[in-house]
Amino acid sequence: MSDFFNLSYIPERLALVQGDNIATIFEGRQHTWREFQNRVTRLAGGLVACGVGPQDFVAVLAENSDRFFELYFTPAWIGAVLTPLNTRWSYGENLYALQDSGAKVLCFDDSFRDIARQMKESSDHAIEIFIYMGEENCPAWARDYEQLILNHDPVTQIQTKGHDMAALMYTGGTTGTPKGVMLSHMGIWSSIISASHGMGCRDDDIYLHAAPMFHVGDYGVSMAAALAGATQVMIRRFSVVGVLDAISDQHVTMTLLVPTMVKMLLADEKTENADISNLRQLIYGASPMPEGLLVTCMERLTGVDLVQVYGQTELSPLATVLPASDHTFGNKRLRSAGRSGLCVSMRIEDADGNILPTGEVGQVVVHGPHVMLGYWNKPEVTAQTLKEGWVYTGDAGYLDRDGYLYLVDRLKDMIITGAENVYSAEVESVISLCPGVLDVAVIGIPDAEWGEAVHALVILKAGAQVTEQDIIRHCKDRIADYKCPRRVEFRPDFPLSAAGKTLKAELRKSYWPEGGRFVN
Amino acid sequence: MSDFFNLSYIPERLALVQGDNIATIFEGRQHTWREFQNRVTRLAGGLVACGVGPQDFVAVLAENSDRFFELYFTPAWIGAVLTPLNTRWSYGENLYALQDSGAKVLCFDDSFRDIARQMKESSDHAIEIFIYMGEENCPAWARDYEQLILNHDPVTQIQTKGHDMAALMYTGGTTGTPKGVMLSHMGIWSSIISASHGMGCRDDDIYLHAAPMFHVGDYGVSMAAALAGATQVMIRRFSVVGVLDAISDQHVTMTLLVPTMVKMLLADEKTENADISNLRQLIYGASPMPEGLLVTCMERLTGVDLVQVYGQTELSPLATVLPASDHTFGNKRLRSAGRSGLCVSMRIEDADGNILPTGEVGQVVVHGPHVMLGYWNKPEVTAQTLKEGWVYTGDAGYLDRDGYLYLVDRLKDMIITGAENVYSAEVESVISLCPGVLDVAVIGIPDAEWGEAVHALVILKAGAQVTEQDIIRHCKDRIADYKCPRRVEFRPDFPLSAAGKTLKAELRKSYWPEGGRFVN
Repeated sequence: MSDFFNLSYIPERLALVQGDNIATIFEGRQHTWREFQNRVTRLAGGLVACGVGPQDFVAVLAENSDRFFELYFTPAWIGAVLTPLNTRWSYGENLYALQDSGAKVLCFDDSFRDIARQMKESSDHAIEIFIYMGEENCPAWARDYEQLILNHDPVTQIQTKGHDMAALMYTGGTTGTPKGVMLSHMGIWSSIISASHGMGCRDDDIYLHAAPMFHVGDYGVSMAAALAGATQVMIRRFSVVGVLDAISDQHVTMTLLVPTMVKMLLADEKTENADISNLRQLIYGASPMPEGLLVTCMERLTGVDLVQVYGQTELSPLATVLPASDHTFGNKRLRSAGRSGLCVSMRIEDADGNILPTGEVGQVVVHGPHVMLGYWNKPEVTAQTLKEGWVYTGDAGYLDRDGYLYLVDRLKDMIITGAENVYSAEVESVISLCPGVLDVAVIGIPDAEWGEAVHALVILKAGAQVTEQDIIRHCKDRIADYKCPRRVEFRPDFPLSAAGKTLKAELRKSYWPEGGRFVN
Repeated sequence: MSDFFNLSYIPERLALVQGDNIATIFEGRQHTWREFQNRVTRLAGGLVACGVGPQDFVAVLAENSDRFFELYFTPAWIGAVLTPLNTRWSYGENLYALQDSGAKVLCFDDSFRDIARQMKESSDHAIEIFIYMGEENCPAWARDYEQLILNHDPVTQIQTKGHDMAALMYTGGTTGTPKGVMLSHMGIWSSIISASHGMGCRDDDIYLHAAPMFHVGDYGVSMAAALAGATQVMIRRFSVVGVLDAISDQHVTMTLLVPTMVKMLLADEKTENADISNLRQLIYGASPMPEGLLVTCMERLTGVDLVQVYGQTELSPLATVLPASDHTFGNKRLRSAGRSGLCVSMRIEDADGNILPTGEVGQVVVHGPHVMLGYWNKPEVTAQTLKEGWVYTGDAGYLDRDGYLYLVDRLKDMIITGAENVYSAEVESVISLCPGVLDVAVIGIPDAEWGEAVHALVILKAGAQVTEQDIIRHCKDRIADYKCPRRVEFRPDFPLSAAGKTLKAELRKSYWPEGGRFVN
C-alpha cells in the first residue's frame, strides 16, 4: 500500500517544471530551483552522514537566510523533522527545547555562534553535532553547511507517510513551559494549500521573508507562496529600510508582516517616499490587527491587496483567511478574521461542549487534516487541546451566517467584571481609534468590588496630548459603561513576543499575586 | 495522535462558509450547501442503519443526478468507500466488480432498475441491500433513498485517516479483467487540489456534469470545482442539446468533456446558434485530443478558456494540466499534456528503470500523495504498477526543459516496424489534420517482412471524397516514410470505451491471432 507523502515534493516538482526560475535571493546570492533541489538533496546526504535518520530532529537557531529556506525541506527529504528554535528566546528556553526534543543536530548562523559554542561547551551535552550555516569561517567544533553540500552526493528520498512528523514547532515559551507542537507532512501541506488558495499565489510572485523564518507564520505563508512557484527573498531580520529596499530592488510582490511591523512601516517617514509599486499583496496576521491600524494601512497602501490570515501553531498554522476582496472601507467584515481555509472545518462551542448557533460567542474549535499530531511528550496537555480531531483554540469568537469568524478575545484575556464578560480585544479596538493612541492593551486587574476591573495600558504617539479622562470619555461615547476602563495608565512600551504580540501575561503579572489565575 | 482526514470535509466547510449558495441543480430540483450537508449526514445515518460501516463498499450504478453527487461524499462521512460501477459495462462485468469488492449495498436509478432486480433475483446473492435513487416509485425489494434521508437523523462523522480508502474505482473492464483501484482520502484530495489550481476554480462557478459521473474524470474535475465552492449542475447523460441547454439555462461556466463529446458538439449545427456565452472554461481530457480537433475547438469556441487534464485512475486521477494560457495558436506546447499538477512529481524512465534526461522518450512515471493505494485484491498487478510510491503509467513520452510532458503513445500502442519505433498517436495526429477525416486509429498489424506494419483505420466526414492514396500522400509530405501507413481502411465507426476512448485492442483483435501480444 502506498500512501507516501513528503513536503519536499514541492521543490522536487519546481525543479521539474520551472528549474531555471530563481528559487532564492539573499544578500546578492541566488539559486535556481534546479540548483535548490540539488543543494537540498546533497545537504540531505550530508545530514545522513552526520547520523540523522527518519524522525530525528534537526534544530535550527538562525536569522533569516536562503539556507534556512533550504532547511525547510532538507530534513523532510530524509524523513527527519525540522525543529526551528526561537531567536528571541533565552539560552535556557532554547536549551529546554533541544533537550525536550532530543535534537540530533543544531544548525546555527553567525548571530548564534556564541550561544552554540556555549551549548557545545556546557556539561549538558544537549547536542553533539553542530552545523555552521553562517557567512564567515566555520568554527573547528562545527561542520560547515556548504562543505556538507560539496562533499555529498544527492541521496534517495526516504518515503514518509502523510501522518509522519515533518516539523516540531515550539510555542509558549515566554508565558510558561515551551511545548513542542508536532506537525505532519499532510498537515502542513493542507494548511499551505488553504493559504495559497486564499492568497492567490502565482509562479511569478516574489515573496519576502521579513518576519522571522523560525516562526510558523512566515513558515506557512512562504511555503504557500513556494507551492505556487514564487521566488523567495530574505532579509536577515526585519527593518523598515530592509523591507522597503527589498520591495524596490528585488521586485518583491508579496510579504507577511505582523501588525507591529505594519505599524512601524506606516510610522516611518521613509515609507512615504519609497517605491513600493511592485508590492501587490501584503499578508498580515499572527496577532490581531487593531482596526485603526488596518484602516490606516488601507488608506496609505493604495494599490496593495491586503489579506488577513488567522491561525495558530496547532493548526499548521492556518484557520481562516480574509481575502483582499473583503478589504473595502466600511465593510463590517473588516472586523472579522475571515472564513475557513479550503479544508478547514470550524464550530463554536460553549464550555460544556455544545455547538452554538450563528452569532453566539464561545470557543473556536477547528478540525481538518491540518491539525497537529499533538504536543511532543505531553499527552495530558494534548488531551486538553486536541479532542477527537478537533483543536480547542482557546480563542473566543462567533460565526456569522456566511461563516465569517469574529474573534472577540483569547478566552484567558476575557475580563469578568461584576457578572459581565468584557472582551479586552473589543475595548482595545475602540481605544485604538482614539487620536494620539499608538498602542493599547486592556487587562483585568483585581478589584474588591467587581472581582476584576477593566484596566487600560496605553502607549501614546510622540507628542500626543491625551489624558486618562480623554480616553475614558472616548470609550463612554462608544461602548457600554461596564466595558470602559476604570483606569488608564500610560507606558513607553509593551513586552512583545517573537511574533510581535503584546504579552498580556507579563503586563498582568505586577497586578496579580504569584500564581493568580491570569498569570498564564 | 490526530491525522484524521475525510473527503466530506468539503461539503461540511461549504455548508459553513456558503450555506445559502446553491449546491446542486438537477431537472428542476435544487439544494443549498446547507441542505446538501444535512442530506448527506442523514443519508449517512440511513447507510449506518443498513449495516454499512467503515471501509465497507457502497456501489452505485446510475446515470448522472444530484443524488449521485451526494453519494460522492456520503460513504466518506461514515468511513465507507464509494464504488461507482460503469454504466456501459455488461451485466457480467459489473457483477464481477460487485463480487470482487464484496459491496454491502448497491444504489441504482431508473435506468438500472431491471439490472438491479436481475442481481437481486439471481442465485449469486452478490448484494443484499439495494437502495433506489430514481425518480419514480421505489420497488418493494429496495429501500428508498429519500426515505432514508427523511427517517434518519444526521450521524456523527467517523474519523478516517488520510490513507484510508475513500473510493474503489474499477477500470480496464472492456479489455481484460476489471481491476479495482483503491484511492485514499488524501490521494483524491491532493489530486483535486492540483486540478483546482490548474483550472482556477471559483466559488461563483457553475459546473456541468456532462460526462458520466461514475467516471474518474468527471469525479475528479467536479470535486475540484466543488472544493472551490462551485454549484453542480447535472444532465442525466451527454447529448449536444442537453449540454447547450444547460449552458444557456443554468448559466454553466465550466464543464469537462472528453474529446469524442467535443467532436460531437462541434459537428452539430445547433452549436452554431446556441448561446454559450456563460461558458468560461472547457476542460478536456480522459483521452488524447487530436490536434486538428483542438485547433478547430480554439477557432470555434472563441472566448472559452480551454484547459487540458491528463491522468489515469491510478493517480486519483490527475497528473498534468495544460492551462488556458498555453492555448494559443501556433504554440508548440499545444501538443503537450502540460505540466505536473501542484503536488505531482514525474520522471521518464527507460525499460531498465534508468531516469532519462530531458527530451528522451521513455515511460512516464509519477509519484505524489495522489497515487493509488494499490489494486484491490491484486498484489501482483499492484507490484508491477506501483513501485516504491511511483506509478508506472504505461504511457510513453518525454519532458522538455520546462517540465512540459509530451505523450507519444501508450507503450502497448507503439508499433515496431523494422527496427523503428512508430508512435501511433503521432501518425493519428498527422492524419487527423487531413481534410475530410473525422476520426482515425493507427495500429500495428502482423507483417511478414517488417514484423509489424503501420495500419490506419479512418472514419470520413459525411460526403468527404478522400482515398487511401490521398491519406498516404498527406502523411508522406509530413512524416518519415517508415511512419506512414502501408494501408488505410475506411470504417463507419470505432468501438469506444465509457470515457470515449477508441478501443484499439478491439480494433487489433481481428488482425492478430488469439492471445497475440497486442490484444490487451
